[in-house]
Amino acid sequence: VVSNRGPLSFRRDDHGALEARRGAGGLVSSLGPLVQGTGASWIAAALSEDDRAAAGAGVVEAEGFRTRMLAIDPDDHRMAYDVISNATLWYLHHGLYDLPRRPIIDGRWYEAWDAYRRVNKAFADTVAAEAPNGAVVLVQDYHLALVGGMLAARRPDLAAVHFSHTPFCGPNSIRVLPEAVAVELLRGMTAYRACGFHTERWARAFAACCRDVLGSEPATFVSPLGPADDVREVAASSACEDGLRWVGNVAGDRKLVVRVDRIELSKNIVRGFLAFDHLLASRPEWREHVVFLALVYPSREGLADYLAYRNEVASTIERINRRWATPSWTPIVLDDSDDYPRSVAALRAYDALLVNPIKDGMNLVAKEGALVNERDGVVCLSRDAGAWDELGGAAVEVHPYDLLATADALHAALTMGPSERAQRAKSLHDTVAARTPKHWLDEQLAAAHR
Amino acid sequence: VVSNRGPLSFRRDDHGALEARRGAGGLVSSLGPLVQGTGASWIAAALSEDDRAAAGAGVVEAEGFRTRMLAIDPDDHRMAYDVISNATLWYLHHGLYDLPRRPIIDGRWYEAWDAYRRVNKAFADTVAAEAPNGAVVLVQDYHLALVGGMLAARRPDLAAVHFSHTPFCGPNSIRVLPEAVAVELLRGMTAYRACGFHTERWARAFAACCRDVLGSEPATFVSPLGPADDVREVAASSACEDGLRWVGNVAGDRKLVVRVDRIELSKNIVRGFLAFDHLLASRPEWREHVVFLALVYPSREGLADYLAYRNEVASTIERINRRWATPSWTPIVLDDSDDYPRSVAALRAYDALLVNPIKDGMNLVAKEGALVNERDGVVCLSRDAGAWDELGGAAVEVHPYDLLATADALHAALTMGPSERAQRAKSLHDTVAARTPKHWLDEQLAAAHR
Repeated sequence: VVSNRGPLSFRRDDHGALEARRGAGGLVSSLGPLVQGTGASWIAAALSEDDRAAAGAGVVEAEGFRTRMLAIDPDDHRMAYDVISNATLWYLHHGLYDLPRRPIIDGRWYEAWDAYRRVNKAFADTVAAEAPNGAVVLVQDYHLALVGGMLAARRPDLAAVHFSHTPFCGPNSIRVLPEAVAVELLRGMTAYRACGFHTERWARAFAACCRDVLGSEPATFVSPLGPADDVREVAASSACEDGLRWVGNVAGDRKLVVRVDRIELSKNIVRGFLAFDHLLASRPEWREHVVFLALVYPSREGLADYLAYRNEVASTIERINRRWATPSWTPIVLDDSDDYPRSVAALRAYDALLVNPIKDGMNLVAKEGALVNERDGVVCLSRDAGAWDELGGAAVEVHPYDLLATADALHAALTMGPSERAQRAKSLHDTVAARTPKHWLDEQLAAAHR
Repeated sequence: VVSNRGPLSFRRDDHGALEARRGAGGLVSSLGPLVQGTGASWIAAALSEDDRAAAGAGVVEAEGFRTRMLAIDPDDHRMAYDVISNATLWYLHHGLYDLPRRPIIDGRWYEAWDAYRRVNKAFADTVAAEAPNGAVVLVQDYHLALVGGMLAARRPDLAAVHFSHTPFCGPNSIRVLPEAVAVELLRGMTAYRACGFHTERWARAFAACCRDVLGSEPATFVSPLGPADDVREVAASSACEDGLRWVGNVAGDRKLVVRVDRIELSKNIVRGFLAFDHLLASRPEWREHVVFLALVYPSREGLADYLAYRNEVASTIERINRRWATPSWTPIVLDDSDDYPRSVAALRAYDALLVNPIKDGMNLVAKEGALVNERDGVVCLSRDAGAWDELGGAAVEVHPYDLLATADALHAALTMGPSERAQRAKSLHDTVAARTPKHWLDEQLAAAHR
C-alpha cells in the first residue's frame, strides 16, 4: 500500500526513544485492519520530525504494520501537499475554484508542481527498489497520481493500481491546468494497470478527460468504499454513551437534525444552515421544535479560503440563532470539538442527517449514519455525493444549490411516517452493511490482476 | 428575427413624438445590415419607457427595419434579465460561479425563473400570433431559450432555430440548476429545429447536457460569426484618425500591447495585467519599452460582482504602475471611455493584442483586430475563446490561468521577426475576411430548412 498518510506515526517517549502509534485518517481506519498482520508493506510520507527520524530506521514493524516512512524534504512535501494536492487537484476535482480569480498559475505554482513530481518520484523510487517481483501495489489518492507513470518503465512486473477517493473533474475543468501538466497528470494515471473510483460518474469524467487530452481510453474500475468496522465498536463504547447523553441534553424532546463534517468548502455547510433558516421562516410550526446539531470542526486552516469559510460558517449560525432563538431554544448548536465518539452518538440519535456537499468522492458520514442510527433517522443526501449512487433510493434527495429543495427535504424527513422511516432506514442499513472495506480491497486486487 | 435587444430604440423628440434610432449592441451590428430592407420582422423587448410607448404602436417601420417591440412588464424583464439571463445562465455557460458560495437558489430565484418563463412566453405569443405560415424564425441567445418549446406545439409550421452567442456549459455544470429547470431549459432548446453555436466545442457540450439530462440527442449546427462590416467603415473614419493620434501619443515609440473589453468576469482582465507585471519583472529589457493600453469599460454594474471586479481591475493597474512607472513612462494606460472609434484605432495600431478570456462564446475583438490592424500585429489568443478554433493556427496561444505562459506569449509576440509577423497577420486577416455575417445568417437559414 502506498499513501501520503500511513498507518503509524511516531513520537519520542520520555527516554527519547521512538514510539509508534496508530495514525489517524479515514484511509487508515478502512484499510488498516485489513492490512494489519498480513505482512504487506505500507509506504507513507514522514509527516513530522519524529516520523523523519523513524524513516532513517528503514522498515518499521509495529502494531501489526510493516511500514516504510519516506523522509521527504519538508519544503517539497509542504508545497506538493498544500499548493498542488489540496489547493489545485482537490479544488479542481470538487469544482471549488472561483475561476475569474483562482487559480493563478505563476512561478511559485510551477515550483510546487516540480515538488509534487519529486514527492511522487520519492515514492516511486522506494517502491521500485523494495517491491518484490510481481507485487501488487495499491496507490491511494490524488497526492500520488504520477507514481504509476514513474514505475511503469522501471518495474513492468509490478501490478500497480491507483484509487481516487475524490471525484474527478470533467474535460472542461482539466483545461484549467497548463496543457503539459494535464498531459503529465493523466499519463501518470493511465500508466497504472487501472484507476479506481467510488462511482461510475467519476470514472466516466476521468475517461472523458483522457479522451480529450490524451486521445486514449483509460482502464478504470468502480469500487465504492464502505465505512470502517470500528464505527460500530465506537458506537458500543462508553465514550459514545457519554456523547449520547450530551446529545440528549442538546436536543431535549425536540426533533434533531445532525450534520458531521470537516469545515470544508465542498461540504456546503453554509447553504445547509440557510436551508434550515428557510425551513424555520416558511414553516413556523418547526420553531422551538427542532434543533440543528452541527458537529463541524476546523480543517486545512493553513489555506486562507478555509479560514474565511470557517468565519462564514460561524457568522451564518450567529445570524440565524439571533433571528429565531428563544430563551429556551437555540436553533443551531455548533460543536467544533472533533470528538469522534460524540459524533457517532449524534449519528445514533438523529431524526434527520443532512449531507449536502456540492461534490464529494463518496461521503462516509452518510453511510456511518445509516449503519449506527437507532431512531429510523432519515438521510437527506446530495445527489452530487458519490454515496448518492448507492443510497439514492432510500435517502431523501438534496439539491446542493437549492435552498427550497433542501428545506423541503428536511421537512419531508422530519414529518415522515414511522413505517416509511423504518423501511428507508432498513434499506439504507442493509445497503451499507452489505459492503465492507474488504470488498473494496478485493476489488482493487482484482483490478490489479486483470 | 427574435432577440432581447432590437435594431431600434425610441425616444421622444422635442415635440414629444416618438423617434426611432438605430440600437446598439453586437448582434444589431452584425445582423442589422443583412436584415435591413428585406421586409423581415424583428421582435425585441422594449427596454425603456419610450420603447414601451412605441410597443403600443404595433409594428414600426423605420431605418429599413420592420420592428415589433414587446411591452414586457418591467419587473419581469428585470428579474429575467438580471437574475436568470445574466446572473445564472451567463455564469453557468462561462464557468463564473464561486460554487461553494454561489448560486443560492432561493425563493427569489424561483420567482425570477417564473419571470424568465413569462418573458419567453411573451415572445412566443407574439411570434405565434404574427409569423406568416411557414416562416423561418431566428431566435437569438440565452435570454430566449424557452421560445422553441413554446412555439413547437402551437405553430409546427414555423421553422424556428436558436443561436447561442455564449459558450454552453457541460454536464457537470448543468447540474447546478434544479433538475426540473435544467429539463425545462434543455427541452425548450431541443424543441427548436436546431440549436446553433459558434464552435463545435459548445455544440458538443450542449449535446452532452441533453444526453445526460434528457437522454436524447439534440439537433445542432456550428456557425462561427465574423465581425460586422462596419468595423472597416469606422476604421476609415475621421473619428478613428483622431483616435489613432491619441493612441500614438500614448505609445510614443514604444511597443504597444492592446486589449479592448467590457469589464466582464469572463474576460480575465486582472490576470492579463498580472501576466504583464510578470513580463516586466522577469524581462527587464521591456521596462520603459512597452505600453499596455487597456480600453476596458464598465459593464453590468447593477451586479455587485461586476462592481467588485471593476475595483480589482483598477487596483491591479495602480499597483503595477506604482511598481514600475518612471517619470516618462506609465506601463498600463487605462481608458474606460468606451469610445468605439478610439478602440478601432487601437486595434489598427497594436503590436500585440491580448485576448485571454477564461471562456468566450466567440470573441469578436480578436477578429476585428485581425481585420483592421496595420502593423502586422500579433494576436495573443486564449485557447478557451471560441475564436481559437478558427484563429489558433495563426494566433499565439494564451493559457488563461497561466501567468507565465501568458507573459511568454506577449514576449514572443513583441519579439517576433517581421516575416513571421507578416505571415501570421495575413493568415489571420484572410481567415477572418473569408467569413462575413452573411455566411452566418445563411447557415442559420439552412439549419432552419434542414
